Amino acid sequence: MRILGVDPGLTRCGLGVIDAAGARKVALVHVEAATSAAGDPTPARIARLAAAVDAVLDEHRPDAVALERVFAQHNVRTVMGTAQISGVVMLAAERRGLPVALYTPSEVKAAVTGDGRAAKPQVGFMVARILGLAEPPRPADAADALAIAIAHAWRGGAAPSGSGASTDAQRRWAEAERAARRRG
Amino acid sequence: MRILGVDPGLTRCGLGVIDAAGARKVALVHVEAATSAAGDPTPARIARLAAAVDAVLDEHRPDAVALERVFAQHNVRTVMGTAQISGVVMLAAERRGLPVALYTPSEVKAAVTGDGRAAKPQVGFMVARILGLAEPPRPADAADALAIAIAHAWRGGAAPSGSGASTDAQRRWAEAERAARRRG
Repeated sequence: MRILGVDPGLTRCGLGVIDAAGARKVALVHVEAATSAAGDPTPARIARLAAAVDAVLDEHRPDAVALERVFAQHNVRTVMGTAQISGVVMLAAERRGLPVALYTPSEVKAAVTGDGRAAKPQVGFMVARILGLAEPPRPADAADALAIAIAHAWRGGAAPSGSGASTDAQRRWAEAERAARRRG
Repeated sequence: MRILGVDPGLTRCGLGVIDAAGARKVALVHVEAATSAAGDPTPARIARLAAAVDAVLDEHRPDAVALERVFAQHNVRTVMGTAQISGVVMLAAERRGLPVALYTPSEVKAAVTGDGRAAKPQVGFMVARILGLAEPPRPADAADALAIAIAHAWRGGAAPSGSGASTDAQRRWAEAERAARRRG
């Protein structure tokens, strides 16, 4: 199953595509952080990011879209743009007949690090480890988009039922922590 | 100039089209409140309303779109859906090359009633009076969409500069109030 994970935002929109084969095999297909200029009119910014989303959907043809669930209690100045982009992403997915799954930030963090309150660097570190990358994808929005896709692969569609995705993530994280301590 | 006014919302989205000829001549072309079912998945609801917006744009071919500016300090439970729909409306307009103007609720109220804190029934009453309708459009979202379009006609593109749109609206409102007192 191919999954597009989206970390929505009006200034930077993370787009990460992975292939999930079986329970634990996930592989990077594509990752980017699409951007729009803060000085441009909002409709032009939205159209620019919508074109980036369409391009990824057309080129990589995912089977599902996983999207960060937006909460109004976040930063009031950015949340409106984030909600606008999430609406545009949902529309693009729905028009292609793709299922859309929503995950809270803490669900995503719990899935990839085993800790729902993990810091951003932990998320990037584990995304790199899970996907076999030399280092965390940058910027953070790109890593977050991949984390959302991984969360969907493990907690949503791809993992067999009762496989204990977060337990596996916790084991991986513990291994990674031990490795880091050995290196330090 | 033909203007589409939009009162964005995920449950009800007001869509009102007017023709504005010269400074004060405005005429109703179309009004509706597009709806989506609260029980449906959000992507399906967004796609349904986007289709309604596209249908109005295709059938009535406005020259400009006027949209209520969304604030995060509104009801937290509804503001996210409102922002999502506003993003979709901006995208539809931008993709057709139509200019998008944003107005705050108080700007719209001030334009059509002369009072930025006017109650909803006042807005509906004045919309009906300005457009020569027998009674206020229902539901309120439909009247609000027309009010946004009228605000754009008067304060934005159609009114000649220095024409004092709100002064004119205040005069009309005062006349309407006097008429209401005579009836009462």
